[in-house]
Amino acid sequence: MQKEIILEKIEQAASILSEKEIDMWLTFVRETGNTKDPMIDILVGTNATWESAFIITKEGHTHAIIGSLEYENMKSVGTYKNIHPYLKSIKEKLLEVIEQIKPNKIAINYSRNSSLADGLTHGLYLQLLEYFKETEYVDKLISSEELVAALRGRKSSKELEYIKEAIKETQIIFDEVSKYIKPGMTEKQIASFIQNIVKEKGYELAWDEEYCPSVFTGPDTAGAHSGPTDRIIQPGHVLNIDFGIKINGYCSDLQRTWYILKENEDTPPEEVQKGFNVIKEAITKAANEIKPGKQGWEIDQIARNYIQINGYSEFPHGLGHQVGRSVHDGGALLGPKWERYGNLPLLEIEESNVFTLEPRLTIDNYGIATIEEMVYVTKNGCEFLSDRQNDLYLIH
Amino acid sequence: MQKEIILEKIEQAASILSEKEIDMWLTFVRETGNTKDPMIDILVGTNATWESAFIITKEGHTHAIIGSLEYENMKSVGTYKNIHPYLKSIKEKLLEVIEQIKPNKIAINYSRNSSLADGLTHGLYLQLLEYFKETEYVDKLISSEELVAALRGRKSSKELEYIKEAIKETQIIFDEVSKYIKPGMTEKQIASFIQNIVKEKGYELAWDEEYCPSVFTGPDTAGAHSGPTDRIIQPGHVLNIDFGIKINGYCSDLQRTWYILKENEDTPPEEVQKGFNVIKEAITKAANEIKPGKQGWEIDQIARNYIQINGYSEFPHGLGHQVGRSVHDGGALLGPKWERYGNLPLLEIEESNVFTLEPRLTIDNYGIATIEEMVYVTKNGCEFLSDRQNDLYLIH
Repeated sequence: MQKEIILEKIEQAASILSEKEIDMWLTFVRETGNTKDPMIDILVGTNATWESAFIITKEGHTHAIIGSLEYENMKSVGTYKNIHPYLKSIKEKLLEVIEQIKPNKIAINYSRNSSLADGLTHGLYLQLLEYFKETEYVDKLISSEELVAALRGRKSSKELEYIKEAIKETQIIFDEVSKYIKPGMTEKQIASFIQNIVKEKGYELAWDEEYCPSVFTGPDTAGAHSGPTDRIIQPGHVLNIDFGIKINGYCSDLQRTWYILKENEDTPPEEVQKGFNVIKEAITKAANEIKPGKQGWEIDQIARNYIQINGYSEFPHGLGHQVGRSVHDGGALLGPKWERYGNLPLLEIEESNVFTLEPRLTIDNYGIATIEEMVYVTKNGCEFLSDRQNDLYLIH
Repeated sequence: MQKEIILEKIEQAASILSEKEIDMWLTFVRETGNTKDPMIDILVGTNATWESAFIITKEGHTHAIIGSLEYENMKSVGTYKNIHPYLKSIKEKLLEVIEQIKPNKIAINYSRNSSLADGLTHGLYLQLLEYFKETEYVDKLISSEELVAALRGRKSSKELEYIKEAIKETQIIFDEVSKYIKPGMTEKQIASFIQNIVKEKGYELAWDEEYCPSVFTGPDTAGAHSGPTDRIIQPGHVLNIDFGIKINGYCSDLQRTWYILKENEDTPPEEVQKGFNVIKEAITKAANEIKPGKQGWEIDQIARNYIQINGYSEFPHGLGHQVGRSVHDGGALLGPKWERYGNLPLLEIEESNVFTLEPRLTIDNYGIATIEEMVYVTKNGCEFLSDRQNDLYLIH
């Protein structure tokens, strides 16, 4: 199944090369068991120990130039048609293969903006320049970032199906969690409960075990990207969980918000309800504007402004990112034009992209309200892949 | 326990910086969940999403400059004293911290020769140059490769203890396997048997599940770095297993050789016994020459020559590599001066290094003979960490 999807993506890569008029795509790596190029899983399907070159041409030809000890493995993985094993140095075979292709442009696996297109380490880049020293290829190297953005961003129907499955299962787990949460528990307890379900069902977590899920409760929480703590869930807390799983190699990433009622409460306090509503509405407003051709910062700004005009501070991160094999996937980002995001907020949204929408705001004295939904970009807009959280989940 | 060992390694890093007269070590990373700098586990202990700088000075000061959402997480990990969270761009804080240190030399995480010192991706390197553009730091950047080689290579007593434990448990598993192997089984069956034991005992595999263990039997095998196949184990086969586990984050890596007796045999054929003996003796001869100050290629050559003068082809890889947190670890390599190994065979062996010794040769019509032992470099020589395989294991 993984082989099938890799072959599908390689074919797609060739057509994107052709569309963008780039002759070949060279993914140059070594010791991927230690430092993994993020494209290896999607373009190759196995690790490489010695310096290895994986080449796709715009005509759809594939070449793997690899250490001789890995020849049998590469053959059995079966994702590259032409396999060129070498013993002492990759240089000769690499130049030989490229000489046949006679490329005018060679996209290689580096990018300032997109970490997913930036798997080529600097030392290995210098090594490549050394091999190309007396050739014309040095001047033909370009970043693979637009290829990566298109290839990872444009989901095939099979990829979409896998993502939907991950979302569905995540929602089922959230339902379990709703029944489980009780005041007096700690964040860690809830996280363990979730991780145990994931283990039992044989899924993978979508990101680091340390903070997948993130569980954060009450005012002054550590927040997302932090591990759950021994903080105790108390009546009057707003509680959030940021969580995702990986099924068939594809991720989900969702957030939900709960409120822990006090003894004398049947409904949440007004300010808590308002915070939740503003988040929900921010998502609706942003989703309404998503369509192919828009730039990500435009969508981010809609949610960001709406939250600010309602009297809250802006959220300290982007509105949403793409999801796929990695939980932070693709190129275009629904984020503000901050230096740390490089040019990603300026890239155009494309049909078949999958994005999260995850604004957040702080409700003073109660906690953080966040909802994270996932959407799929259609020809003229987008549709929600997740069943939206329309109401605060209440814990008695 | 992991925190304790990271703090120990950070302290060791400071003393190596001091020894080599380098003022600071900057590990610059982003999205380590996708592309992991191989030093993150040993120097930091948690992932970083946004551009992040981890700095150690020769005085032993530590600075983590990280995205603001990861502040709480970094604090709870507890490996860096000074944590500087940023929101929109890392540039200002990064320059501010370096300005305080006033370094003359800044080691950064790239290397042509050593993949373990080459975690900085090329795009991110360009980003760093951009931040340093109008500063004097651009001219002060050097490769961290000699720091990495020393830090990963010089094992503390605690690290050595972990490695010994992994070796011991691996040997216990090999004993189980000896009892299990029967003619008629497939390579895959034996690999599953081993992986099930590892799972039951709660260990990790030392490398990729696909080919840990490698099981290869008979003539014309796929060999190491290939996954086990459906090839059937038959009388008259030489069978090898290349296998390692990770306990407490530290690896073992061993190979053993079996011979499947034919019905009328009590002892292996002469040529099989000879092949085994030559491998064993090659290891002894190489180990006898290992001591601090020697270069790796000198040791490789001893085993390589011995095998060739006995009438076999040279092995298509290095004699041995270092082992630690990664199964291919450290800097200095016991390998030939082939281009694919860069300068690693020229580096000096140091006290407290842990190496494998793994020559191999092909016994025509029977299979491949390999033994892989692990040694620890002492003040004047080396000692074996593994219980040597002195006799061919025979399967009736």
